[in-house]
Amino acid sequence: MNLAQVARVLSGFVLFFSLLQASLLVIACMEENVPPGIEPVTGFAWGAGTGLAIAVTLWLIGRTASADFFRREGLAVVGAAWLVAGVLGAIPFYASGAIISSCDAIFEAISGLTTTGATTLGSGGNPTIEEQPSSILLWRAMTQWIGGLGVIFVFIVLLPAMGVTGKNLLASEQVGVANDDLRPSMRLQARSLFRLYVGATAVLGVFLWIWGKATGSHTAIDAICHAFSTLATGGFSTKNYSIGQFESVVVEVVTIFFMFVGGTSFALLISAMRKRSATSLWKNPEFRAYALLTLTLVLAVSLILRIGGGEVLDHATVHRNYDDFGRCLRDAAFQVVSLLTSTGFGTADYQNWPKAALILLMFAMFVGGCSGSTAGGFKIVRMLVFVRVITFTIRRFIRPKSVEKIKVDDDVVPNSVISAMVGLFLLWLLVIFVGAIIYSFERGIDLTSAFVISLSMCSCTGPAMAEVFEVSPGEFTLVGPVNVGPYGAFGDLHAYSKLFMSFEMILGRLEILAPLVLFAPTTWRR
Amino acid sequence: MNLAQVARVLSGFVLFFSLLQASLLVIACMEENVPPGIEPVTGFAWGAGTGLAIAVTLWLIGRTASADFFRREGLAVVGAAWLVAGVLGAIPFYASGAIISSCDAIFEAISGLTTTGATTLGSGGNPTIEEQPSSILLWRAMTQWIGGLGVIFVFIVLLPAMGVTGKNLLASEQVGVANDDLRPSMRLQARSLFRLYVGATAVLGVFLWIWGKATGSHTAIDAICHAFSTLATGGFSTKNYSIGQFESVVVEVVTIFFMFVGGTSFALLISAMRKRSATSLWKNPEFRAYALLTLTLVLAVSLILRIGGGEVLDHATVHRNYDDFGRCLRDAAFQVVSLLTSTGFGTADYQNWPKAALILLMFAMFVGGCSGSTAGGFKIVRMLVFVRVITFTIRRFIRPKSVEKIKVDDDVVPNSVISAMVGLFLLWLLVIFVGAIIYSFERGIDLTSAFVISLSMCSCTGPAMAEVFEVSPGEFTLVGPVNVGPYGAFGDLHAYSKLFMSFEMILGRLEILAPLVLFAPTTWRR
Repeated sequence: MNLAQVARVLSGFVLFFSLLQASLLVIACMEENVPPGIEPVTGFAWGAGTGLAIAVTLWLIGRTASADFFRREGLAVVGAAWLVAGVLGAIPFYASGAIISSCDAIFEAISGLTTTGATTLGSGGNPTIEEQPSSILLWRAMTQWIGGLGVIFVFIVLLPAMGVTGKNLLASEQVGVANDDLRPSMRLQARSLFRLYVGATAVLGVFLWIWGKATGSHTAIDAICHAFSTLATGGFSTKNYSIGQFESVVVEVVTIFFMFVGGTSFALLISAMRKRSATSLWKNPEFRAYALLTLTLVLAVSLILRIGGGEVLDHATVHRNYDDFGRCLRDAAFQVVSLLTSTGFGTADYQNWPKAALILLMFAMFVGGCSGSTAGGFKIVRMLVFVRVITFTIRRFIRPKSVEKIKVDDDVVPNSVISAMVGLFLLWLLVIFVGAIIYSFERGIDLTSAFVISLSMCSCTGPAMAEVFEVSPGEFTLVGPVNVGPYGAFGDLHAYSKLFMSFEMILGRLEILAPLVLFAPTTWRR
Repeated sequence: MNLAQVARVLSGFVLFFSLLQASLLVIACMEENVPPGIEPVTGFAWGAGTGLAIAVTLWLIGRTASADFFRREGLAVVGAAWLVAGVLGAIPFYASGAIISSCDAIFEAISGLTTTGATTLGSGGNPTIEEQPSSILLWRAMTQWIGGLGVIFVFIVLLPAMGVTGKNLLASEQVGVANDDLRPSMRLQARSLFRLYVGATAVLGVFLWIWGKATGSHTAIDAICHAFSTLATGGFSTKNYSIGQFESVVVEVVTIFFMFVGGTSFALLISAMRKRSATSLWKNPEFRAYALLTLTLVLAVSLILRIGGGEVLDHATVHRNYDDFGRCLRDAAFQVVSLLTSTGFGTADYQNWPKAALILLMFAMFVGGCSGSTAGGFKIVRMLVFVRVITFTIRRFIRPKSVEKIKVDDDVVPNSVISAMVGLFLLWLLVIFVGAIIYSFERGIDLTSAFVISLSMCSCTGPAMAEVFEVSPGEFTLVGPVNVGPYGAFGDLHAYSKLFMSFEMILGRLEILAPLVLFAPTTWRR
């Protein structure tokens, strides 16, 4: 592998990253009312400085590199970028005292950059979210936004150009990125992506800002941070009880819409906007399946809530009455979209919901959004192919002589694509399984949590869920004392769990195979 | 479909089944010390009588049938045989008063015939196992033994002859069973199977009988019943606390050995015996994987128990001290083999074990034994192919230009086989998922139980597991009040759950696709 060239590309990325921290340093310097004990200026100064030093070092290493930059180098850069950013992004949290252990700081940064949104704030001895200075909250939200931008860039522009992933994320030719033919279309595609992503974020941010001003329900910082983490389907909030704390239908509906947009393929959105045709969205089988699955899940969860929910204590002193179907629909819609798009915002503590609803939410977590979106999970397009494989297998068993093929719309899905998807699916299950075993050694969580935490990390969702024990009708207590639900945090877990969770987030974010390339011996030969 | 011919074949099967019940009627007539309130004579008289009447009716329907008997007819017979036997087998339980509801009686019979071994005795108002007359216990054990014999006959002789399942259970030519070429080899294969199965059962039965006599630990009926249900990897015991109640290392070791044999491919055992070569077992990749997986799981579970087990209350007043590694190994070996082979006997209440051990036990439940054995589950051979798919996917991702193929030993696994296995795997997961949703509506069980019950039924294992709440060190209470563990029973669940569980057992036993043929509209046309 051409390590020098990898270093050169990384140096540019690290420089960009440290400039971002430098801009936050400026904001931190101007910030008033900083809570005692937290020093954001120190944090961002350390962060920007270290980043600059590393960028220079990497540039010196890569200065004389040859231009050979192929598939392997590209994958190494992608894997290394998330790792390096995870460490650099953690510095402001740790050096400012916003997060007291380095392990938690790294967890928080990786959770941000992978758009997962699992937090350690308010647990493990760390100050709560609302005890943080604005500049730190802004940095948390920015890590998500950059992570979201990074992931759509990697999956829509970079990997297809390197021949790693085609339309179905599975082509396999080895094309050099240096190839001049590809550059213009890559540039064009990257520019459209950036415009769309920035534009959508701006629309949401401005709306939330104005709405917050008009109703007095939240500040400008709240608005900006939520705009950043919604489009990225991240899930970091500025409130201890997430979006639920606003108690505003308008904010919830708008957030649902933008989470749904974040879970849609950005390549598809760009092409629909170029054609100025909304129906072209509906013609796309993945988008259609995504929309229909969302509707089905929302309705199913609402009905289950209406039938089995009753009155439950949500958080602190807030009661929810699920005898009102409107409330069921409102909470179900938010939670389903939040988990299906792997965002992880919460407006209700679903852990107290009927178990059947929880199983559907777990399913939503696993599936995730569309390919080429900022959402995590196994992706709708793959589930669609799997549904076809199921019906094909049944039909083939009943009529063994049929010569039918597996198709999505009118395209035949080649066997090699199916086999690669299956390999990925099995790897995904394996990682979830290994994670569950590791987390099961925690005394503070239960068996269900161990699995759902692992699932949530692999899908970059954020919150998990625990088994609850019904003390009296409508009142629940957690079986494991650590709350990993939508209002929970992971700081009380052991370092070994949090490190593996960080690893799972990166694996899940880059769809497992790309980061594994870093560990392959052949990558390091030559 | 040639329904008349299906009826004719079924009439023979039903006749055989009712003759078995008639023989138990004779035993019941001679039985002394029958507990008050249970009338086995009435039960078996009703059972044998109804069976005879149905056999005659079916024979009258099928009397003039044409000889056309193809794939579809064969699958229909197999599916219908288990359903009809489930209803007929339930009559003695219900008519004798051994089980008080008809739903529970059918559940018990299907659980027996599918070699699952989940019971309703001792729950839902039914008398406990030890309150049953010997003839009823014998009938329970016999349903398992016949079910085990039936399943190896279907998968080793019948389906391959019909072209439904080849070496990898997946060929697809449509060959008529009437084809004269096949008959002699079918007869020969069936005869060898029967001899081996009867022989192994006899060896175990005689050993247990003698051992019971010598030590006074159990009766002849106990010995016979356990011989029946061990070889069938069934799991019905004659004791409320299963094999654990004997507190005998010798009985446990012998049972482990014969459960392991039951989980081995009988086709492989026959061929090894013909060649008089034990090494030919080891040369078989599926057997090798089975043996290695068993060893690995036993060691891993023992270690986890040793590290995290401590002293726990097992049942009633029996304490287990897992600071003793010998005890860990003994209990782990029994439980791993019992669940991997889908038997379901218990010698320890594993629900109180460390959570990591439970995750490994769930994995064992899912995997099951070898193809062509009496064990349920997804089967080792398919897992072996999946392991190859995983390594292939990783290697292919790292070196996209490699021309490697997916192989087990030296045989290339064709893409069509992989795609069919994947279809089956996805269907399997889907059925488990749907079952979990249905059971999650039960108030008496928790989320973990809902999933593991569904898994256990699909794999024909029997016991499930629940989340426990640690009241004080080493003392646990179930989160859901219904105990579905190794000493538990399912009688307290609602009828809808028990009916779907029965359906899942049949689906799992016949590997999902065969019973689905009964529901296909094309099956009923013509």
